[in-house]
Amino acid sequence: MRTFKLTICYDGTNYHGWQRQPHCPTIQGEVETALADLLQWPVAIAGSSRTDAGVHAFGQVASFCAETELSAEVIQRALNAKLPRDIVVRSVEEVAAGFDAIADTKRKRYRYVICDGLVKPIFQRQYCWFVRGWPLNVEAMHEAGQGIVGRFDFRSFESVGSERQSTVRTIYALEVTRCPSFGENLIYIEVEGDGFLYNMVRIIAGSLVEIGRGKRPIPWLAEVVAAQDRTLAGMTAPAQGLFLLRIDY
Amino acid sequence: MRTFKLTICYDGTNYHGWQRQPHCPTIQGEVETALADLLQWPVAIAGSSRTDAGVHAFGQVASFCAETELSAEVIQRALNAKLPRDIVVRSVEEVAAGFDAIADTKRKRYRYVICDGLVKPIFQRQYCWFVRGWPLNVEAMHEAGQGIVGRFDFRSFESVGSERQSTVRTIYALEVTRCPSFGENLIYIEVEGDGFLYNMVRIIAGSLVEIGRGKRPIPWLAEVVAAQDRTLAGMTAPAQGLFLLRIDY
Repeated sequence: MRTFKLTICYDGTNYHGWQRQPHCPTIQGEVETALADLLQWPVAIAGSSRTDAGVHAFGQVASFCAETELSAEVIQRALNAKLPRDIVVRSVEEVAAGFDAIADTKRKRYRYVICDGLVKPIFQRQYCWFVRGWPLNVEAMHEAGQGIVGRFDFRSFESVGSERQSTVRTIYALEVTRCPSFGENLIYIEVEGDGFLYNMVRIIAGSLVEIGRGKRPIPWLAEVVAAQDRTLAGMTAPAQGLFLLRIDY
Repeated sequence: MRTFKLTICYDGTNYHGWQRQPHCPTIQGEVETALADLLQWPVAIAGSSRTDAGVHAFGQVASFCAETELSAEVIQRALNAKLPRDIVVRSVEEVAAGFDAIADTKRKRYRYVICDGLVKPIFQRQYCWFVRGWPLNVEAMHEAGQGIVGRFDFRSFESVGSERQSTVRTIYALEVTRCPSFGENLIYIEVEGDGFLYNMVRIIAGSLVEIGRGKRPIPWLAEVVAAQDRTLAGMTAPAQGLFLLRIDY
């Protein structure tokens, strides 16, 4: 048996999220189907992040074990020939036996993309949250973000329904920057941590927008974390603005 | 009667080009329908560029005349509320009577987007031409482009079937640059001129890719122009990589 690590990029618009489901198209389902077709044997892959419906990934990581003579390069090329046009395998590496894309995750980096202004975005319309109105105060959002960098109990930023044992996580970095693309006013919120609770990045994004709009003061974000109460945080920002950028092992 | 100038941004993927056609969705058709709905009167708009099926625009310009009491701002807001999600009116200005978006055009700027590399693009897949393979030589492409800046007979870069009176045009600038976006290897060819022949930008892009691949030497592009023979130029690059960026009056 050999173990492989896949790095996968996808546009989540047309999928019901990462996780395989019986009657809906999912990313895991598409990759497993392509892999089974290639290896002529059913293969289960383990994905590091179960991204929700509509969430995108630049660098999702998944692992699988298989008995095959094929090289990593041949597997990559064959999978990419079989996968639909909104999913691509960016790399395939053979790794040491026992590698587990879920359990071995050290850090994850997400980007949440917002478009502000009075005119809706066209080319980024499936890849951002359009917050109509006057410019958001990006400097205030960035400063507020620095108040939650560190090791905290982030239960204020977790959607109900999740069953994690601990809600303590470490955020290593949080950056809010304006990145004009093609005349569209994009704002990137990039956040890196040792793991994230369910909807945590989207709730952080929704809360930062309240600060960017001037509805909340800068210290408010850290106060919400300290209060440990989900009802105090902002809305859960829509899925289509979220990108899983990178996973480190 | 008042005269208005519209600046329009659209994703051309789902349209049969700019020009109104009886049984196909077109950009002009969508804008005219929205305008007629707003003004309760059929209005014909004149678009500066008849972009082909699949071609995108960031700054298409169109003009129309109408008897209305509505302000430019109200017209913009109402049109954007009616238009589909892949078309937006970026601005509406009232202009002097007699303004004609077609006849008064002074300069146009286009961008042609290429993605090179071994892995197909995901987020840009509808907005570029994927040229699979090793990196294109962007410096050579840029240098070759400088050989066609100036006033020339560009009939070598015109698709058959057009009926222009003159094939002499001036290119003011041509720049080829690498613009990595989200880990995807994008190359921008930007070209500005006093007007362009049918498919001219796409044939220039197709020819520059031959130089970028090393199949043709740098001076070849200028030689093709001098030869005044369409059969010598490269292929017509696909529509989906082309963006009408800006029109100056």
